[in-house]
Parts: sequence; structure tokens; C-alpha cells
Amino acid sequence: MSTDKVKVIEIKKSVFEDNDREADRLREELKSKGIFLLNLMSSPGAGKTTTLAATVDKLKDKYRIGVMEADIDSDVDAVKIAACGVESIQLHTGGMCHLDAGMTRQGVEELTDKQINLAILENVGNLVCPAEFDTGAVKNVMILSVPEGDDKPLKYPLMFSICDVVLINKTDVMPYFDFDIDKCREYIAKRNPDAIVIPICAKTGEGIDTWCEWLAKQTDAWLEA
Amino acid sequence: MSTDKVKVIEIKKSVFEDNDREADRLREELKSKGIFLLNLMSSPGAGKTTTLAATVDKLKDKYRIGVMEADIDSDVDAVKIAACGVESIQLHTGGMCHLDAGMTRQGVEELTDKQINLAILENVGNLVCPAEFDTGAVKNVMILSVPEGDDKPLKYPLMFSICDVVLINKTDVMPYFDFDIDKCREYIAKRNPDAIVIPICAKTGEGIDTWCEWLAKQTDAWLEA
Repeated sequence: MSTDKVKVIEIKKSVFEDNDREADRLREELKSKGIFLLNLMSSPGAGKTTTLAATVDKLKDKYRIGVMEADIDSDVDAVKIAACGVESIQLHTGGMCHLDAGMTRQGVEELTDKQINLAILENVGNLVCPAEFDTGAVKNVMILSVPEGDDKPLKYPLMFSICDVVLINKTDVMPYFDFDIDKCREYIAKRNPDAIVIPICAKTGEGIDTWCEWLAKQTDAWLEA
Repeated sequence: MSTDKVKVIEIKKSVFEDNDREADRLREELKSKGIFLLNLMSSPGAGKTTTLAATVDKLKDKYRIGVMEADIDSDVDAVKIAACGVESIQLHTGGMCHLDAGMTRQGVEELTDKQINLAILENVGNLVCPAEFDTGAVKNVMILSVPEGDDKPLKYPLMFSICDVVLINKTDVMPYFDFDIDKCREYIAKRNPDAIVIPICAKTGEGIDTWCEWLAKQTDAWLEA
């Protein structure tokens, strides 16, 4: 793959004992620098990169966007996002299953020079471990894709409970899967009554306006406050 | 959920420093007891439980099957498998993202009383962490489902490199996704030239015969040797 197109950072294991404190510190720094940070999580193959590409396309004239693509080894995602015309760096986790605040900071520092004001972290594809580590993001969002099934909130409770928004992606294939969206909303509400659920299809663009309106509102509130 | 139908075990964190040694010890014990153990892994929602139900249905007259369903919190999977008419227990991992050999042993001990000779462990839905921990299984198998995309071997290299078989599931929805099976086979071969790739559709039954023949052959070899 064309590693010459994007910067790849081999991130180091975090040395901080207290990740929560480190995450709070990173959020304060982001505030003072005027950067909103979104942490995007999902299972492998739920559509994080395609959703990000659609999001970037919609918001790149409004914000100076920088994307951090966390991946164990490859750089296929960062190359895709760079092609959308925004800053994009690849974070190699070296086999690690999540990012914590110290690891996220290594990516943010690379982006700070680029004068961005909306930073998006695509976390490692995993519904378990990333939920346990505060990255320092202002908001946490997850994608559940239709083919994964409507019962996932029952099986990965922590992930659903820490997210501000659940994007239900790949709605275009709903007819081919046994996915009951009302049941899914009910399971999510049980875990997290405050979660906002937005059905989207990153491929066709369905729901992307609603999602981007939410993101823009959060970003503006953070940058203006 | 009907927890009265299946036994739920809250498994304890393993105390063994050296998981590899503990896994080898468990394999030796399984050998002496005449039990074949299969470790089944995948992303959330790739179809582990549906594949298991189809497998059980095909092989339950030939072997005395026992299934261990690892899950963070719920018991929906064990209930489904119990309905197939085989021994089924639910292992609650208490938020942990994988099973190691010590944790697997706690499940195996429960099944040993049941006189089973084919034990199947459905690991936690996760393509990262379970690949790092030898459970003591005789063979490791993973499911990659079509909606996840053909590029997953590039992004989760360790998981693909440790598996004896990769089942490509949900082939019925191939027309609705950009999934190039030849490219996928090529990526898998790059990571693991010895991996056997079997396309299946657990829902329609496609490929289940081929998969069950492989599993029966491995089980017979282990039990006879």
C-alpha cells in the first residue's frame, strides 16, 4: 500500500497509570487549543471508514478536519481518508486492541501543527476493549451495522452505555437480515437512556445529514464555549 | 432471558502467569479424557452461534457435543444452543475481552461430567484479543462474514495467522456487498498459507457439509490417536 501518501506513526504503549486523569488533561488541552475530538468506535467492518468519508465530505468546508486512523498494521484507511482531501494520519497500535488517552495524545500532537479544529479518531475495530479506555475525546460515537444483529446491546453492554450516539449503519441491506430496529432501540435505551440513535447508510448517504448536524452542533458548542 | 434453561458460570480471572504452558497442560488433559476442543472466534455478529447451531445439528448423532458460550453478560447464545439438544453452558467473562486457558478450563470442568467428546468454545466476539491467548483448544477456527469486507486479513493479521480454518459466512448476501472472495483468499494466504478457507452460509446451509467433514476428521484423528 502507498505508505508514502500518509504519515504512519508507530504509537508507544502508554506510560500513564491513571488513564482517566490523563484523558481529562488531554480534553483540557484540546479545549485551550480549540480542537473538538470525536472518538468513533465499532466492530470490524461496521463501516467506520466509509462513514468517516461521508462525514468529511459533508463538513470539510465548515471545519479544518484531521483524522487519526488507528489500525494494528495496515494503512488502507488513512489512504482512503487522505483521498477525501483532509489531513489524515495512521496510528499503528502494534497489536494493541484499543487506544487510551496517552496513545491518542501522540496522534493529536501530530495534527496540532496542521491547524485543525475538528479531530476524529477512528478507534481499533473492537466492541469490548475501546469502551474501557477514555481517549480524551469530547464525545464518543459508535456504529452498529445491520448485519451484526439487533441483539448487540445485550452482548456488549459497556460499549453501548458509554456512547453519546449510536449510528445504525448499512440500512440499505435491512431487507436481507433479521434486524428489528425497534427492538434494537429498546435494547440500547435499556443500556443507555440518553443515547441518540441515528439510522444511516454511509454508502447511499441516508441519515448522513442528521448525523452531521449533530456533530456540527457539538463541535460549535465546544469551540465557542 | 430464561437463565433457568442453561447453566451460567461466572468465570474468574486466570491466575496463571504462563498461559502457553497452561494451554499445553489443558490439551494433554483433554487428550487423556478423550475430548476434542475447538475454539471458534469472530467479530461480533459474524454468525458464530448460527454456525454452531448448524454444526451441532449435523454432528450431534455422531459425537456427544458440549458447547461453551463465552459472553460478557447475556445468556442468549447458550439458550439458543441448548434448544438444539446438546449440552450448553454460558461462561460470563465479566467484561473481559478474551478467554485464556485457565478460563477455558473452568468451562471444560463443567462439561467433563457430561461425558462429552466434542467440546466447542464460542469465544468473545473480538478479532484482536482472543488471537493472543491460546485457550488449550486442539484447533482454532474463525468466521469472517461477507458484510465485514474482504480486507479484514490486512487489518487483523494475528487472528488470521493463528487459525486452521477461516469460514467465510453469509455468502447469501454476497450480491449486496463489495466483497471480492478471490482477493480475500489471497489476503488470507499472505497471512497464513496453511489456512483452509471454506465459504459457508449458516442460514441456508451452504458449505456446512464441507465444514463438518473437516471438523469430524480432526475430531476422529484426535480421539483415535
